[in-house]
Amino acid sequence: MDLINRFKFTRLLSEDTTSKSLHLLGTILDETSNKEELAIVSVEKLAFESHQFGDLFTKFISQIDLIDNNDIFYWLKGNTNASSFKDVKVNLVFPATEKLVLKYSTQNTFMIEESYNLYEKVVKPVILSTPKETTTWVDNILAGVSEADKVIYNDQNPETGFILLPDMKWDQSNLSTLYLQVLVRPTIHSIRDLNDTHLPLLNNISHWVPKVVLEKYGVDPSQIRMFFHYQPTYYRLHVHVTHIQFNSLKGMTVGQAHLLSTVIDNIANIDKNYYQKCTLHYALGDNHPIYRAIQEQKQ
Amino acid sequence: MDLINRFKFTRLLSEDTTSKSLHLLGTILDETSNKEELAIVSVEKLAFESHQFGDLFTKFISQIDLIDNNDIFYWLKGNTNASSFKDVKVNLVFPATEKLVLKYSTQNTFMIEESYNLYEKVVKPVILSTPKETTTWVDNILAGVSEADKVIYNDQNPETGFILLPDMKWDQSNLSTLYLQVLVRPTIHSIRDLNDTHLPLLNNISHWVPKVVLEKYGVDPSQIRMFFHYQPTYYRLHVHVTHIQFNSLKGMTVGQAHLLSTVIDNIANIDKNYYQKCTLHYALGDNHPIYRAIQEQKQ
Repeated sequence: MDLINRFKFTRLLSEDTTSKSLHLLGTILDETSNKEELAIVSVEKLAFESHQFGDLFTKFISQIDLIDNNDIFYWLKGNTNASSFKDVKVNLVFPATEKLVLKYSTQNTFMIEESYNLYEKVVKPVILSTPKETTTWVDNILAGVSEADKVIYNDQNPETGFILLPDMKWDQSNLSTLYLQVLVRPTIHSIRDLNDTHLPLLNNISHWVPKVVLEKYGVDPSQIRMFFHYQPTYYRLHVHVTHIQFNSLKGMTVGQAHLLSTVIDNIANIDKNYYQKCTLHYALGDNHPIYRAIQEQKQ
Repeated sequence: MDLINRFKFTRLLSEDTTSKSLHLLGTILDETSNKEELAIVSVEKLAFESHQFGDLFTKFISQIDLIDNNDIFYWLKGNTNASSFKDVKVNLVFPATEKLVLKYSTQNTFMIEESYNLYEKVVKPVILSTPKETTTWVDNILAGVSEADKVIYNDQNPETGFILLPDMKWDQSNLSTLYLQVLVRPTIHSIRDLNDTHLPLLNNISHWVPKVVLEKYGVDPSQIRMFFHYQPTYYRLHVHVTHIQFNSLKGMTVGQAHLLSTVIDNIANIDKNYYQKCTLHYALGDNHPIYRAIQEQKQ
């Protein structure tokens, strides 16, 4: 391809580290007019192909070096064959449990239409039957027993208080992927429980978190997103706080995520019982206990 | 790294073609117990590094072949250096316009809090000042003058009718990235205009689109997502219809996207004037005319 070989690089227009793509600005000599014309080149790494899966490590990836290791989890980097630079990240879990195998397996997902009636009849009993031990780690953080050194902000009020700390998934260095969690002190399962009695709590989070993030990380309030998940991974109300540039997280998809500001607006300005009236729509994997409970109830 | 070299591939657990990552299941011989143990390996291609930008085509990518070309747009594939397979996709725009350069440039984005009052005072005037010619292409499709061969469903009713056709960005072959657009017949700018008088239109879309998608593509109604954008790219009401697996689109981010089903529920069951009462929160680039208008009004 002759044109591309004549491309002279000027500057990077933009890049997306999630999709591993970038847009470059440059010029190419137009041979008809003999003038240098602007040219935009977009380059995107391609996904692995199915024929590579089996012999990824014998044929396609080499020179794999260990970066770090914690218990059964290993982080490595390697090169695609004969490349002179590290261009793949490799994680290894060994020995792996069946639960972890399930976690990484493709799930079929389905859109769920959850009326409040369906919530009360089917979803709530599943939530209430979750063993209390699964959220002991939340209680430990709130009580100051675990991860106390990580806590960025701690409001002890039992009704309106919360704790702010970095999410495990954040490397704590790259601000454009900033990811924090708010754990609230009162026992609330999810946004379905929220009404006007919780406005002091929600407003307290909405007021203080941006201030603390600005002071601690220098990130402006207009540069963060705060949202709940529904369904959440665990049933103790929490808020995800992310940088606005970090916008290709699966957990931020419409239906799965609910902006804190929208939740406050719905309760304060639309209907104090909005979350006991609305129908919530979200995708759910077919091995999620709530999906199974909904299917059983249909039969 | 010795462990990884002893990895024996069993099967693919899952893959994500957006992030170019995959999860493999296999086994590794545990030398202590002399037993084959389960192991999960995750591999993800790394993003390009800044030192590569300038000499991407002289040092890192070679053997570039043209796939297709239309006017100033070229699609190509290449290999990262010395790799034996095509592993990068390259797009070239030549000659490029300044407008296209702006389109591909990084924008600073900011969260906007749009009350209905702000909408009426600042946002609506910007929308109304958009030249009519920018949506001539929509009128052409609705009138059957353009793209008539692509139309999948056509309801001529001027109040409740709409046209369904594939989105330009869909390759029309891979169902897991299915992407269609609904253009509605009545002149409605965005979801801000919607109230209970539009329920027949919204219910009509909600009823027919899943039926047509099932019949035409064999995709089950539980496998599609239908949503509006706010702010949209153009101010003629339209609905995005995507496969549920296609869940890392930026346009599906909470705040930017509004599920059709949620919009119907808000108007039908919460408040008939929900969209004339609610505050909408969304990220906007600093070269968007609405962002500029909001900034000017603040001064």
